[in-house]
Amino acid sequence: MALAERLTRLGTETAFAVSLAANEWGAKGHRIYPFHLGDIDLATPSVVTEAMNKAIAEGKTGYCPGAGVPVLREALAEDTNARRGTTYTADNVVVQPGGKPVITKFLQAVMNPGEEVLYPNPGFPIYESQIEYLGGVAKAYRYVPTERGFAIDLDQVRSLITPNTRAIIYNDLQNPISAESTDAEREAVAQLAIEHDLWVLSDEAYFEMRYSGESKSISALPGMAQRTVILYTFSKKFAMTGWRLGAAIAPLDIARVISTMNTNNESCTTQFIQYAGAAGLTGDQTGVKAILETLRGRRDAAFDVLSTTKGIHIAKPESTFYLFPDVTEAMAHKGVDEVNAFATEALHATGVSFCTRKHFGRPQPGEERQYVRFAYSGLPEEDIREGLGLLKQWIES
Amino acid sequence: MALAERLTRLGTETAFAVSLAANEWGAKGHRIYPFHLGDIDLATPSVVTEAMNKAIAEGKTGYCPGAGVPVLREALAEDTNARRGTTYTADNVVVQPGGKPVITKFLQAVMNPGEEVLYPNPGFPIYESQIEYLGGVAKAYRYVPTERGFAIDLDQVRSLITPNTRAIIYNDLQNPISAESTDAEREAVAQLAIEHDLWVLSDEAYFEMRYSGESKSISALPGMAQRTVILYTFSKKFAMTGWRLGAAIAPLDIARVISTMNTNNESCTTQFIQYAGAAGLTGDQTGVKAILETLRGRRDAAFDVLSTTKGIHIAKPESTFYLFPDVTEAMAHKGVDEVNAFATEALHATGVSFCTRKHFGRPQPGEERQYVRFAYSGLPEEDIREGLGLLKQWIES
Repeated sequence: MALAERLTRLGTETAFAVSLAANEWGAKGHRIYPFHLGDIDLATPSVVTEAMNKAIAEGKTGYCPGAGVPVLREALAEDTNARRGTTYTADNVVVQPGGKPVITKFLQAVMNPGEEVLYPNPGFPIYESQIEYLGGVAKAYRYVPTERGFAIDLDQVRSLITPNTRAIIYNDLQNPISAESTDAEREAVAQLAIEHDLWVLSDEAYFEMRYSGESKSISALPGMAQRTVILYTFSKKFAMTGWRLGAAIAPLDIARVISTMNTNNESCTTQFIQYAGAAGLTGDQTGVKAILETLRGRRDAAFDVLSTTKGIHIAKPESTFYLFPDVTEAMAHKGVDEVNAFATEALHATGVSFCTRKHFGRPQPGEERQYVRFAYSGLPEEDIREGLGLLKQWIES
Repeated sequence: MALAERLTRLGTETAFAVSLAANEWGAKGHRIYPFHLGDIDLATPSVVTEAMNKAIAEGKTGYCPGAGVPVLREALAEDTNARRGTTYTADNVVVQPGGKPVITKFLQAVMNPGEEVLYPNPGFPIYESQIEYLGGVAKAYRYVPTERGFAIDLDQVRSLITPNTRAIIYNDLQNPISAESTDAEREAVAQLAIEHDLWVLSDEAYFEMRYSGESKSISALPGMAQRTVILYTFSKKFAMTGWRLGAAIAPLDIARVISTMNTNNESCTTQFIQYAGAAGLTGDQTGVKAILETLRGRRDAAFDVLSTTKGIHIAKPESTFYLFPDVTEAMAHKGVDEVNAFATEALHATGVSFCTRKHFGRPQPGEERQYVRFAYSGLPEEDIREGLGLLKQWIES
């Protein structure tokens, strides 16, 4: 029996293949250093788990409104406004089982089949998958290396916009490359969106995962709140990846339709987890600060080793928990042409497992440099130094 | 800025309007008897919450496979086989954040735009909403009253099938009408599916919510497992409506694409809740039995009063937690023509809040009798007797 035609357009996260390869290699008795997963191995702060148990004891185990419980929607609007300088109310906040559902729901809300959506590449692979799955035309925009990391190729973005372009996906504090917009870049993206009447999905998953400076939201720029949907997630800040709690923060018309999608798709997000999230936002911040400090130590450890490895070029990002070094020369030195083959050889030689640029979208024409991604959020500093030390030895040998 | 055209086809659960009306009436100081919500006011069994806390303590707070953790997939395959006589393995089980996501994912997997899907009406309103939202043609089939309750109008089902019909949604142990197939009826539906090469969504949300007899699954009939997707939910049996845990139990090709949809839509279902669900299936069943016994007492209480109310005709269902009486004569006696107006008058006269037939799909041509739905799962026996007693007085006066 045939399946539906739309499935031929459904993509996925190919990084799961890297997990599989690492698990298989580990099952053979080899020590694995897992840098491939953007997951966090730290405990969720107790303020969150305690609030969850209190909510269960109080009977918050039944259905709740599709858009979320009022206490969380209010706390999230206030927290967003305090950190971003926006003026949202609870009505703009639609709770989700994670940040990811915001991608498909945003696209379902604003994009018709045949319309174009710009998205970052390298970038989170679900953008491209969902644009194409929903019948849109996915148009990739690129980044160029700078001294401080990477910058959006704004000339390319400009050249990609047509009368048929409906939206742009913008992921400041970027996965996988840890790019961060300057004020000028963020304002330029906003200017393009206003000029061409585009919707903006602002994926702010890493907004609070930063070690210095201050994050800013494109939604706070003049004229932007009415055309921007913020993807908010509890996953990173609170080490709650597996809890599945996030939200769309959106103009009222979009918030309303996303709420109706919730009613259709999943009824509501787990009720007691919403109370837990609210306590995370408003309660004791000791646990949250500790998570960030731990990640800073891991970043420093990973950067120390990689930045002194011959054949690797790397900037020191102040946000996210990824490093995205240029390994072109290291590959040449090892005599490997293809970046996924390089990753496989590294895994077998050292046990260090990581994703490559190819796991974050189809390489674009003209790309000559080779990149890989290290996620340092899932293993302790000691293992980071040990694993990357082995990698350094192997690369330099 | 315009939103996407597909949104014009997105339906919802109009029963939320009933909640709103009840809340507004309650806010004015009136006592409300809430029979409108298919929710459960009982605590989740402690075997489930304890397993959840153990899982959190063991660090099951990160991402897990999109299809679910192996221990739950295996437990669910075994439990399904033991109760249904099927031969599923863990690979057939794809965990979901609730039973509801199975509806849209099934339709996305098997139905192309323009193709027809048969669905029960009155029935769960999300069937029709998602068929139409995804571009399909929703064709309603009806039930006819019998001495023991309701039966599917098989002649009508037969007459609705065309070469363009792709699937049938079958909800044995039905919400809202508590209809239950005879063996002959279930076999006839299976026969039609095989004859016309249809996919079947078997919504088995109430499979274990029964007070006598034994449930059977259409998937266990010869030739059916390969064309049937079972909607499984933890919501009812374990009083876990707000936890959001369910599964699609499907042929391997469909299980695979639904798993990829999970990766795209929500990454995974809350990890520690999956361990909690597994413990619910395999652990101490005292709590589960107590839930069912409590609901039996509530059914008896509700049936006692309604079946002796003049102008109300009602059968005694052995499953679900709904009663779906014919109130045509009661409405005539009260001089009310329209069933939603009848519900509003009842609310204002007695505080008893309930849904009507109209909240479960557009009435079909030729419908002459009027029905309403009482959900007795959300309030204690004493309140059921008191509230329905007031309703009886009002109707008979």
